Parts: sequence; C-alpha cells; structure tokens
Amino acid sequence: MLGGSLALALGRLTSRPRVTVWARRLEAAEEVRARGVAERATVDLEEAVRGAGEVIFCTPMGAMPGLARAVVPFLEAGAFVTDIASVKGPVDAALGPILSGRARWIGSHPMAGGERAGLEAARADLFEGARVILTPTSLTPRDTLEWAEGFWGELGCRCMTADPVAHDRAVAQISHLPHLLAALLVNAVEPGALGFHGPGFRDTTRVAAGPAAMWAEILLENRGAVLAALSRFEVGAARARAALEAGDEKELHGLLAAANDVRRSSVDPV
Amino acid sequence: MLGGSLALALGRLTSRPRVTVWARRLEAAEEVRARGVAERATVDLEEAVRGAGEVIFCTPMGAMPGLARAVVPFLEAGAFVTDIASVKGPVDAALGPILSGRARWIGSHPMAGGERAGLEAARADLFEGARVILTPTSLTPRDTLEWAEGFWGELGCRCMTADPVAHDRAVAQISHLPHLLAALLVNAVEPGALGFHGPGFRDTTRVAAGPAAMWAEILLENRGAVLAALSRFEVGAARARAALEAGDEKELHGLLAAANDVRRSSVDPV
Repeated sequence: MLGGSLALALGRLTSRPRVTVWARRLEAAEEVRARGVAERATVDLEEAVRGAGEVIFCTPMGAMPGLARAVVPFLEAGAFVTDIASVKGPVDAALGPILSGRARWIGSHPMAGGERAGLEAARADLFEGARVILTPTSLTPRDTLEWAEGFWGELGCRCMTADPVAHDRAVAQISHLPHLLAALLVNAVEPGALGFHGPGFRDTTRVAAGPAAMWAEILLENRGAVLAALSRFEVGAARARAALEAGDEKELHGLLAAANDVRRSSVDPV
Repeated sequence: MLGGSLALALGRLTSRPRVTVWARRLEAAEEVRARGVAERATVDLEEAVRGAGEVIFCTPMGAMPGLARAVVPFLEAGAFVTDIASVKGPVDAALGPILSGRARWIGSHPMAGGERAGLEAARADLFEGARVILTPTSLTPRDTLEWAEGFWGELGCRCMTADPVAHDRAVAQISHLPHLLAALLVNAVEPGALGFHGPGFRDTTRVAAGPAAMWAEILLENRGAVLAALSRFEVGAARARAALEAGDEKELHGLLAAANDVRRSSVDPV
C-alpha cells in the first residue's frame, strides 16, 4: 500500500522519469505492472538498484536489514537511501552500519496510510499534505537531510525532524498506543452492542481496521516506549475508575476538561 | 447545539409549521431568534408548551425531571413527549411517572452532535442519516412508538429500538467508554509528542473535544454500565501488556486480528 502509493506518486513527477519497483514475489511484480503502479517492476535486486540514485525501503521492518545487506553490492556510490518504517530506532541501528560508507542513509516515517493494506489500496495522492518525520542522527550529513526534505517535499509532505529515539517515544504516544487502545476497545464491545454504534465509535476505532501483522510488528519493535505510554494511560484510567466509583463529578470533569483543552488547541482540524 | 439543530431541522418541514423554543435565560431565547434558529423563542414554559402536540426535552439530563414537573400543568392531553438524552434508564425512570396519564412519553437518543456545543454549532442537517435509538418499555403504547418513528424519520434519521437498560448497556460500550478512553489517551500524551500527531490520533481522539460538563454528567448517570465496560476493556489491556512484556507476537497479533475482523464487518464505513 505505502510502496505502491509512493511509486504512483513518484511516477507523476517529471523530476523522476524512471521508477523501478522491486518485489519479492513474481506475481507481486506482475501486479505492479498490471495495475499501472509502475512501468518497471522486478524481483531481481540488482536490476532494481543498479544505477539508482535514490532507493526507498518499503518492506516490513524485519526484512530491511537482510535487504540492505543484499543491495549493498549493487548500490551506486553515494546513492540516497531511506525507508518508510514506523519505528526508527531499531531500523537506524540496523541499517546505518550496513549502509555506512556505501550510501547516504537517513530514516523517514511518512504518517499516512490509514487502515488499508495491499497494492489495491495504493493511491497517488496518499502523501499530499501528510506529515513526514525524518530521523537524522549526529552521523547524518547535511546534504542527506536536505535530499530527504526535497524528496518528500516534492510529494507534498510536510517534513519534521527528530532523532530516532525521540521519534519512537513520541509516536508510541500519538500513534502506536492509540492503535492498540482502539483494538482493545473494539474487542471489549459485546456483539449485541455493536449495532448501536454511531460516528463517534466509527472514528475512535478507525485505526483498529489496520493490518494486524504490520501493527503487531510495530508494537513489538517499539515495545519499550509503548509500554511506557501504556503506563501513563493506566494511571489516568485508574483515576477515572476511582472517580466513577465515587461519583466524583469534579474529578471526572477535570479529566475531561484537561483533554478538551489539549485536543482543541494542539490537534489539527480535519 | 442539539436543541438548536432540532429547531432548525423542524423549521424546514412543512408538516411542522410552528416550532417554539423554550430557553432558561432571556439572552439565550434572544440568540435563538437572532440566529434564525426559530422564529418563536421564550423563557415562559406555559407559552412554549400550551397547545403543543409535540414536546421535546433538549436540556441536560439533570434538569429534565424538574422541567417535566413544571410543564405538566400546561401540557395538552395526549401530547407526545420525548427527549434527546444519551442515558435512557434514569430519564425514563424519572419522567415516566411524572408524565404518566398526562402525555404520551417515549425516550429518544439521537446519535449525532459530535464534539461541538452551543447554539452557534447548530446545523439543520445534523440529523440526516443519524441513528436514533428509541427506548419504549412495556408501558409504552404502540401509537407513541409509531409517532416517535415518524417524528425522527421525517428528519432523515434511522430508528432502532431497545429497552432503556439494554440501551444504556450498549451505549456505555460504543459511546461512553470510547469517549472516556479518548480523553484519557489525550491526557497521557507528553506535550512534546503532540506535535508529531497524524490523522490516526486526530480521529481516535476526536470525541475528546466534546463538552466536558455534558460528558461528565453522561458518564456518571450511566456509571454502572460504564464501569462494567471499563472492566472488560481492562481485561484486554492486561493481556496486551503481558504480550508486549513477553514479546509474544502471536498473542498480540491475535488481539489485533480479532479487532480487525469486528471493525471491518460491523462498523459503518464513513
């Protein structure tokens, strides 16, 4: 979904006349061509990477280190390399050393994609207006950061930067924990109650329709930060439970009003 | 917001040529007229209710019993009376006996409104396509249920029925608990992490912008069912925590996949 959308979006840019998609399976490469996601698709890593000035990893995180080792022999000297993974610390720790001295590496996390998966959900406009968090470290050359800003900027993204550890701690709170809680909320509903839902439940649980395998990997790769965020949440939940049990309207109102203030002042309108 | 939207929507129907809004404060009644929400607005209960064939309570739940007692002397014999409260058991228990023999009473819960409050947020199309849960009891005459179905149906709503207790148990799960969790999620985010949020966080926490006083009242009026729903959620959260701590991908994947299935099969698309 993300890789396909990226290929579609890049294909529209005159600045990138040649987009090649690598896929692990032959049928997937054929589907890329059949759906018009990219003209060139191959299962041959050398064919995909040789001569490329920019290489973007769009696989599950667990496949990235092996893939990075496999492409190193074919990489153009000084090629720019980035990825789209949702957890940056482990990816940077794995790929940085493999690519060091061979390519100009920087991590990227485009915050787009929603709950759908697969090539059939790919959209050329997926990245327009999306936030992308770039994760340079003290080892990242300035030109590499500038390249990444230009790359995502041409696709209509708004770039921010954070070091990989700060990134992972932040997204644990504003993406990974919300995803887990949405799933737990869905699981807590009795079947007979589901039919009564309105737009509030629909929006609150939208992310729970996201692909389970991808999200299990994200939550586990970032589990330290997710557990810390969960602990913060549990402290608030215990306060809310006590307020409900005691019928303490003032305490409950305080919890809700605090959330009101933050939600209204710090979250983008639709 | 809900009362104003209802007046606007009714004002568009030729079947209801005369809509009168009652407000507690003179300035509010004047605002109703100034904003064109209704031509007639008054702080005089007798003026509002005498001769009316349909009376809709749109105040906070806590004000409804006193208001019901106050309007009884002025009610037309056999007038239809309903309300828009989000918790039906306590409202039905209070209003049923007061209105019994004086009016044809049935509870209504239109699931619309979103996170905004006040007359300035009123919209004539708020109820179009919205779900309304009607809560007849064994004491509700058939003609009263049919009237309510016609009333909300003319406004474009899709009606369902449930007894008040079943209603409160269901909405605790699909509305009240989601609201509380969204607020707790917002409160659990460190200020420095908020700036990284994407559309997932925005949707997951949308309801947390809802008016705190109204929601504190709803949660407390329905606290038995909300606490039961919270307990179900906490069981799942403890399982998720254990799976994260143990690095148990199979268990975590199972939790997420179960939510996937339910979310995709049982929740309305946007």
